[in-house]
Amino acid sequence: MTVLILTCEQDVTADMVVARLDGTGVPVVRLDPADLPGGVALSGEFVHGAFRGHLSAGGRLVTMSGLRSVWVRRPGVPATRVAEPSAWLTEESAQALYGMLRSTGARWMNHPDAARQARHKPWQLHLAQRCGLPVPATLITTFPQAARDFAERFPDLVVKPVSGAHPQEPPRAVPTSRVAPETDFSAVAFGPTLLQRRVAKRADIRLTCVGDRFFAARKAVGQGADPGEPEEVDVRFATSTEPWQPVETPQRVAASVRDYLREAQLAYGAFDFAEDADGIWWFLECNQAGQFGFVEIETEQPIARAVADWLAAPVPDAAPLGGDVSKASVTSE
Amino acid sequence: MTVLILTCEQDVTADMVVARLDGTGVPVVRLDPADLPGGVALSGEFVHGAFRGHLSAGGRLVTMSGLRSVWVRRPGVPATRVAEPSAWLTEESAQALYGMLRSTGARWMNHPDAARQARHKPWQLHLAQRCGLPVPATLITTFPQAARDFAERFPDLVVKPVSGAHPQEPPRAVPTSRVAPETDFSAVAFGPTLLQRRVAKRADIRLTCVGDRFFAARKAVGQGADPGEPEEVDVRFATSTEPWQPVETPQRVAASVRDYLREAQLAYGAFDFAEDADGIWWFLECNQAGQFGFVEIETEQPIARAVADWLAAPVPDAAPLGGDVSKASVTSE
Repeated sequence: MTVLILTCEQDVTADMVVARLDGTGVPVVRLDPADLPGGVALSGEFVHGAFRGHLSAGGRLVTMSGLRSVWVRRPGVPATRVAEPSAWLTEESAQALYGMLRSTGARWMNHPDAARQARHKPWQLHLAQRCGLPVPATLITTFPQAARDFAERFPDLVVKPVSGAHPQEPPRAVPTSRVAPETDFSAVAFGPTLLQRRVAKRADIRLTCVGDRFFAARKAVGQGADPGEPEEVDVRFATSTEPWQPVETPQRVAASVRDYLREAQLAYGAFDFAEDADGIWWFLECNQAGQFGFVEIETEQPIARAVADWLAAPVPDAAPLGGDVSKASVTSE
Repeated sequence: MTVLILTCEQDVTADMVVARLDGTGVPVVRLDPADLPGGVALSGEFVHGAFRGHLSAGGRLVTMSGLRSVWVRRPGVPATRVAEPSAWLTEESAQALYGMLRSTGARWMNHPDAARQARHKPWQLHLAQRCGLPVPATLITTFPQAARDFAERFPDLVVKPVSGAHPQEPPRAVPTSRVAPETDFSAVAFGPTLLQRRVAKRADIRLTCVGDRFFAARKAVGQGADPGEPEEVDVRFATSTEPWQPVETPQRVAASVRDYLREAQLAYGAFDFAEDADGIWWFLECNQAGQFGFVEIETEQPIARAVADWLAAPVPDAAPLGGDVSKASVTSE
């Protein structure tokens, strides 16, 4: 049973996982959907009530039924490396590839639908609340008056994009920044704006979850740092020299995060928290495609190995259709 | 509790349903996401572990918690009617709107993730097989040799797009056409191609499913029709004068279709079948956004009323998180 990795050519994080998989004897096929059709080819046949399909990439042939797991890392957009790309060919190729992969019994890290749902920030905040994670007071609005009222109740605010960074290449990351006092909120009417109470943090927390294995890392806010500087608000743009260090996940947080992942149907998630002076971890976001290489390098936590282990795990028996589906297939061809 | 209809302005099918809803006393808000931000505004607040949101459109204000159901009919792309449209603003607006709607307890016709999954033709064919529906032998391939082999086994073939017509405006519909004998299949390498054994049909069947209410309609193939003409292969392009007539759904088909809808998590689906000389209904596709106006007009089947009834149905009690989530929310703001 084969592990399928969908990613682009230049992906050192995938390289790390492939290196771990190489030791296990589990076959691995890595391909970029951008190479379909061309370097990547596929075929699926629906005859006599059965589906038989296969994929070919780099001279390797793998049957759809022989897929153990699919890791959706950084896949290119299908059919973008052909001589004459078109939206139509991309759509046809995407539907063919993902339509067949969706028909296999393979485990997904992460399933495309779960991934898509998980990117919605309002849904993230709501789910985090439901799971009992502390969420800083947040407003998403196109009403200037709602923004003004909110800023009165919570004078120390940051503003962030609603949609966050996207998995597309190049990723669009917009830094979180503080909202100046006396800000004029009229422009809120021209686009949804996310305002959030700023957490006075003493550390950033990155909790990387791989199935049921959790790796928490903590990066203290620099001693002399001025928390008013934007780069100290958003760790992704920070110049801090404090290292990421392994830290224990509080049991209560772990339980909530497990609920979150189960509800979200995510096999992988990278959670960002802000730790305040009382040690409370405030939920900021869960990135279902978050990087882990930088954490692993600084903390030496075996995240790539955990991903490899998850991908290489034995396949559970094929799930039957739920309910009362027990009839034999009509002979059909 | 309000019914929310997401669709564009010119939508006579939505008009039919709204007319039915008007008689029920259930409040209805109809809006086009293309008008967000602008004619449509929204706000959502996550404070003290709770989510409170509302939408405004055409001077009507509706709370997110007051939504009974959401009908995703023909929504425009968010933020496309602003003065300066951009991909970024569309993304921000889409995430804000759908992220909040996903956080409500409203019932969806259809949920965006179910809708997206349901559009994958290979997945449709596989699910139809699993549910026991007869599926004509089908090949989807980028291997010319696989196409040649298939054409030898099934000499009477049609070719179709893999992805079918899309919900975007204008919809792209590509007719199904017969494959000429001695066709050269080399071009298959340049794009996934769907080949299907042609069903020698005596009628087209359209089965429109609204929740658990099924409306089957049958359109006989014209007497003098030459089945070699493309317009006789694809009913959507046919000039036949035979009317659509109500017909009973065979019990076995109904059971399979119920399984299909449950597995696909669809509240609405329009199934196309080809009825052969033996009366067997061959599954061609299930369009989760298929039109029903033309069927209702010819058959007088009360489909719009069924949609209205489904949308207006009482809301079930809010589902708790599955499993062991019972902890109180941490007080958070």
